[in-house]
Amino acid sequence: MGHLRKIAILGSTGSIGRQALDVIGALPSKLKVVALTGNRNLQLLERQINEFQPKLFHSSMKPEISYGGEFLSPEEIASHPEVDSVIVATAGSAGLGPTLAAIRAGKTVALASKEVLAMAGEIIMHEASRHKARILPIDSEHSAIWQCLHGEDNRPRRLFLTASGGPFYRYSQSQLAEVTPEQAVRHPVWKMGRKVTIDSATLMNKGLEVIEAHWLFSFPFDSIEILIHPQSIVHSMVEFMDGSLKAQLSWPDMKIPIQYALSYPQRWPNSELTRLDWDKIGFLNFEPVDCDRFPCLKLAIDAGESGGTSPTVLCAADEVAVELFLNDRIGFTDIAKIVQRTLERHQNIRQPSLEEILAADAWARECATKLSVDNCREPERSSNLEIDKR
Amino acid sequence: MGHLRKIAILGSTGSIGRQALDVIGALPSKLKVVALTGNRNLQLLERQINEFQPKLFHSSMKPEISYGGEFLSPEEIASHPEVDSVIVATAGSAGLGPTLAAIRAGKTVALASKEVLAMAGEIIMHEASRHKARILPIDSEHSAIWQCLHGEDNRPRRLFLTASGGPFYRYSQSQLAEVTPEQAVRHPVWKMGRKVTIDSATLMNKGLEVIEAHWLFSFPFDSIEILIHPQSIVHSMVEFMDGSLKAQLSWPDMKIPIQYALSYPQRWPNSELTRLDWDKIGFLNFEPVDCDRFPCLKLAIDAGESGGTSPTVLCAADEVAVELFLNDRIGFTDIAKIVQRTLERHQNIRQPSLEEILAADAWARECATKLSVDNCREPERSSNLEIDKR
Repeated sequence: MGHLRKIAILGSTGSIGRQALDVIGALPSKLKVVALTGNRNLQLLERQINEFQPKLFHSSMKPEISYGGEFLSPEEIASHPEVDSVIVATAGSAGLGPTLAAIRAGKTVALASKEVLAMAGEIIMHEASRHKARILPIDSEHSAIWQCLHGEDNRPRRLFLTASGGPFYRYSQSQLAEVTPEQAVRHPVWKMGRKVTIDSATLMNKGLEVIEAHWLFSFPFDSIEILIHPQSIVHSMVEFMDGSLKAQLSWPDMKIPIQYALSYPQRWPNSELTRLDWDKIGFLNFEPVDCDRFPCLKLAIDAGESGGTSPTVLCAADEVAVELFLNDRIGFTDIAKIVQRTLERHQNIRQPSLEEILAADAWARECATKLSVDNCREPERSSNLEIDKR
Repeated sequence: MGHLRKIAILGSTGSIGRQALDVIGALPSKLKVVALTGNRNLQLLERQINEFQPKLFHSSMKPEISYGGEFLSPEEIASHPEVDSVIVATAGSAGLGPTLAAIRAGKTVALASKEVLAMAGEIIMHEASRHKARILPIDSEHSAIWQCLHGEDNRPRRLFLTASGGPFYRYSQSQLAEVTPEQAVRHPVWKMGRKVTIDSATLMNKGLEVIEAHWLFSFPFDSIEILIHPQSIVHSMVEFMDGSLKAQLSWPDMKIPIQYALSYPQRWPNSELTRLDWDKIGFLNFEPVDCDRFPCLKLAIDAGESGGTSPTVLCAADEVAVELFLNDRIGFTDIAKIVQRTLERHQNIRQPSLEEILAADAWARECATKLSVDNCREPERSSNLEIDKR
């Protein structure tokens, strides 16, 4: 049976957090929840606290339930002696501080929030190496690459990140301009939070994954390729120097990579996890990605290659733009325009300190908000934002 | 750079042998040919000896070339102190003796001849364990599974062997009966020797691979599944307990698994090896196998499950039947009938000695030959063999 692993979940009321609780709840002899944090969904957090009775908890508002748990900040929870592994599943940039706290306390970080590495990859990886903290990916693509690299001492030639393409991959430029928030939050394959669902539809999500892969596997950008794979069965692939590739496949069920990040290097049977049924899979297809209709992808990869504070600004501007789109204040194709314009106005800082990253984040939010207010499409549903051809 | 690995190739004039020489010739700083053996193609063997100047050689007829090499038996070569790794790439059952000699001398065996494990898997694996000899697969399917298992301490749930289906997978029963040797030796994907090409067309080859996988990975027959995958890009897959699968993919180029068996656990760049080009791969499909039209598959798996001398008899009867088919003496669908009838007439011996295996092999060859003579289709092209429904 072995050691009971004690888990903190930051963002337990979100999509990844809820699925992590499903996994942990099904494996009571192996995993134990010791901390939960939530943000806006206080009701759900209270239910989770009642069910799992964590020793530690946090919420932006203090839950009105009486039990023995201790109310601490996310940073305190992430570095608490009671915690073995920290699942960082908060939305957007909120995970940065707690992730650093966990790393500096030498914890194992199971990372679902890709903004953390996109914003501050250099600092995070440097600190992780200094404090011998492990960062294990929960994102299905990075989990796939990690699994394919496991046991291989050989540096790969290329990484292939697969992408479902999202719900609008076959849309024309003009159809994309008319996409509504209601359409965009319905992803064809994955059930995810609203922010990551919109990022999937713009392919910004795939761009952030490229940056994340660059940091996690210390791999150059020009050797990370993207393949559109609508079935989302092959979660990513690694090509080695001898022309051999390894791929990781599974039913598109986030509980599988979540559990692997908690069970690693073991693999545990769990009836909660969906099994792949080959009788139901007719074929798998793969095609090159079209960057022209999905400019967020290239914006993200370019920002990643520029390094410094550029990816921070990309993430912050995207967070603002997605929120505005979800509130029906800007159009779908305006998301890329706002991100691009914010990046154009940014003075990149090389090898930034954490303070410089946070300052760039704040600046970008303000800039993106201002850009969108200037171009807000009320009262009529149209936009005068024009993206410059790069 | 490291140690120069000294390689003996048994069956160097065959398809695998020639490709192994291509691989070794391209990596002179890593690999060195120290022994070559051939059988009927004396002219090619002489050319290979001239080019690679092996210290040791063998042929059924002694080559008429004068150089410093020593003429030894295949068994002597396989166990010679000058040899690190022995590539067993002889056709049919001829590899059994030399494989055992190599194992007993503690050599690494790179095994291409699947009949060796099918005939004598129990003895081979027992001796390998006793003498700490490694058996590394060259077959693309087994190389794929081996690569997917590498680094994993976790027992898999299932193995999926992929099968191209061969050239006649869409043929009806009556079309299959009319297949000629000329049609059958043309495989749609792989360039291979004649025996294995016919075995691929009957799916006997896939059945032998199931037996081979059973022994190589000590995996039960009922957890080894077959998927028809016409593109032969995914060479096989492993499903783990957590619902995650790993697959190995590559261009269907046997030089890739050949090199991996020689470079393991390293991977070496080699411009001789074909790279996978995703722009040329539209889609990959997978479907369950149809055992009814391809009875050899079930015959092989049943013989493997029965164990003892049954798989030996299967192999021997198949070798006879394939040769008769290639000489146009029996029809394509008669191959399965001769194998089945030979198996039906065999008294299985459990945990056979090597002598009992060789006796069963000889008996089966005689029985299969007699069965086919009785049913020989001269002078007219038809057969009165009837397969019994199982």
